Amino acid sequence: MGKDNDEKQQLINKSLNDFDNFDRKMMQRCLELARHALGCTSPNPMVGAVIVKNGEIIGEGFHPKAGEPHAEVFALRDAGENARGATVYVNLEPCNHYGRTPPCSEALIAAGVSKVVVGMVDPNPLVAAGGIARLRSAGIEVVVGVEEEACQKLNEGFIHRIRYKKPLGILKYAMTLDGKIATSKGHSNWITNTAARKRVHKLRVGCDAVIVGGNTVRQDNPYLTSHQAQVHNPLRVVMSRNLNLPSSANLWDIREAPTLVLTEVGANSEFKEFLQNKGVEVVELTPLTPSVAMAFLYERGFCSVLWECGGILAANAITQGAVQKVLAFIAPKIIGGSDAPTPVGELGFAAMTEALQLERVTVKLVDSDLLIEGYLPQLT
Amino acid sequence: MGKDNDEKQQLINKSLNDFDNFDRKMMQRCLELARHALGCTSPNPMVGAVIVKNGEIIGEGFHPKAGEPHAEVFALRDAGENARGATVYVNLEPCNHYGRTPPCSEALIAAGVSKVVVGMVDPNPLVAAGGIARLRSAGIEVVVGVEEEACQKLNEGFIHRIRYKKPLGILKYAMTLDGKIATSKGHSNWITNTAARKRVHKLRVGCDAVIVGGNTVRQDNPYLTSHQAQVHNPLRVVMSRNLNLPSSANLWDIREAPTLVLTEVGANSEFKEFLQNKGVEVVELTPLTPSVAMAFLYERGFCSVLWECGGILAANAITQGAVQKVLAFIAPKIIGGSDAPTPVGELGFAAMTEALQLERVTVKLVDSDLLIEGYLPQLT
Repeated sequence: MGKDNDEKQQLINKSLNDFDNFDRKMMQRCLELARHALGCTSPNPMVGAVIVKNGEIIGEGFHPKAGEPHAEVFALRDAGENARGATVYVNLEPCNHYGRTPPCSEALIAAGVSKVVVGMVDPNPLVAAGGIARLRSAGIEVVVGVEEEACQKLNEGFIHRIRYKKPLGILKYAMTLDGKIATSKGHSNWITNTAARKRVHKLRVGCDAVIVGGNTVRQDNPYLTSHQAQVHNPLRVVMSRNLNLPSSANLWDIREAPTLVLTEVGANSEFKEFLQNKGVEVVELTPLTPSVAMAFLYERGFCSVLWECGGILAANAITQGAVQKVLAFIAPKIIGGSDAPTPVGELGFAAMTEALQLERVTVKLVDSDLLIEGYLPQLT
Repeated sequence: MGKDNDEKQQLINKSLNDFDNFDRKMMQRCLELARHALGCTSPNPMVGAVIVKNGEIIGEGFHPKAGEPHAEVFALRDAGENARGATVYVNLEPCNHYGRTPPCSEALIAAGVSKVVVGMVDPNPLVAAGGIARLRSAGIEVVVGVEEEACQKLNEGFIHRIRYKKPLGILKYAMTLDGKIATSKGHSNWITNTAARKRVHKLRVGCDAVIVGGNTVRQDNPYLTSHQAQVHNPLRVVMSRNLNLPSSANLWDIREAPTLVLTEVGANSEFKEFLQNKGVEVVELTPLTPSVAMAFLYERGFCSVLWECGGILAANAITQGAVQKVLAFIAPKIIGGSDAPTPVGELGFAAMTEALQLERVTVKLVDSDLLIEGYLPQLT
């Protein structure tokens, strides 16, 4: 961080103090509003805004999708003239640049609001705190950092995308208590209970894409949808170098959700045509690797990608830095199997001390199953 | 259960009602006293007794080891003449038969106590409730079932031994979040944190034996002791059909704890002699299987046996009914490894629906690691 950033940090720290319950509650409402657009805003973040006057909410809004107005604009419209002298809550720093929409900082200044409470600073180091500085220079009081952790969590995919120029990779797997993701015969329906599987469906709603390899298509014939009407479905992505895939697969039915097959130049052209006739998009990326796939999905504007693949692809994805977060569902059952697959294949570690220790680990009970969530050490 | 047992059950149910806090506290004190002899009482149970008069403890005792007096006798001695008219708390029904010591029921009657509060009925269906009936017939009020679950948990090994005529088998393993108990190269030091490893040391204190196979000796060269001065160490048991074992191994040093090597007739006689010269006991059991080993350890008077072996032996032990309880330590780290060993080898299950669903599952955090405990479905 250079001198400019240091100054910005100081600017922010000044307002990092205790926040009262009302502020927290309003910020939680912003997050709730933001989540209405779960899965729909990429490459933009999810943002909600609340306008308060005399302790009452007089306007609310959220950013529904890229290209549409930002949350602050909807909230200001909702409040109308009343916004003058009011306090605006927003989970992400208002933008200060002319993009597809004019800057929210100017809209807030024009509306005459007297105070803005911001959940977190813009994660882009080039513009961070610019919106806050602009508001302050216009005489508006700005408070920063209310419910900051929750704000960062909601947009962790967006933040990762901005900081690292690739989508956040989330590896999700379900295994038995003895570490298997299927039987020796490849059968895996079902490891976890209904509640855990529903949780996975919900998880998919918030992701831009779900990736599997050819093995998973052949073995499990998954749907990879959110299994709920009128909610977002991620793009279903199959990585298959040779297109050695079954002609009958649930993923080739794109009525519910789109499917993209990533392959290499020269793969089975007949099958490629078959897929395209079904409406499945086929893209050739050579060589096809997890990091190349993630770069491609970044270009598509994606913030978060869910790896629901088997152990071999998962290991490659981890090795190539395509996974940042791990969600492990563990069912308290023993299946055994000397050849039964496990969630992560070869990483090339000889000593146990080389293991990737997860950070910020949380453990949740999901009915009778466990969900362990954590982050891989960030190497940058 | 026959008619006799039904009547006994009714007898017991009559007193199964709400117990007050004082009764619970006294029973917890019995369990605390009983635990002083953790690991030392087999084939007997761990029993503690407390004698109370006018709300004050006037005598305490516990059963220190087989062949020595029972807890009630020590407590009565401690209370002396004061025991007349007092209430006796004891976590297991007083015995009613002449064994190595005279029946406790008679000792309690002779001491003139007016009430006996029992944690749980004797698990032996042939004698169950006999002691209680004897006390009642002598005009003593008997209450049964205070802190019953905790009483059963403390002596679960003893109870299993009595009911099934074999020791309780406990499979303990430590694995990474991706289901591995070692790297592809067999390295496993350490998967879990210090707190989890200390917990394993404590667990060993309460077990009569801990079993590993030859692979574990070769790969890990373990100590398998409780790593604490002046506490009980389990008998360390190695199962090795061919005695293809290293001549240098921590287990061959028996100064801290004894070691038993189970093998088959005709195994390497030179190595057998080598072990015996080191003071290691060698026993030939042909064919050497987990169930034969458990039968042998039952004859030794053992109540609980800890399987700390690798996946192949663990799978055999499960298949042969030599494991009833599973303790899985999970460290939130990813090691990967396409050939890395997992905790349970082949059980012959083709479909995930055949998995052995653990019962009475509990989840505990042990510092940054997890401990998942549960019981295999009991097939009898």
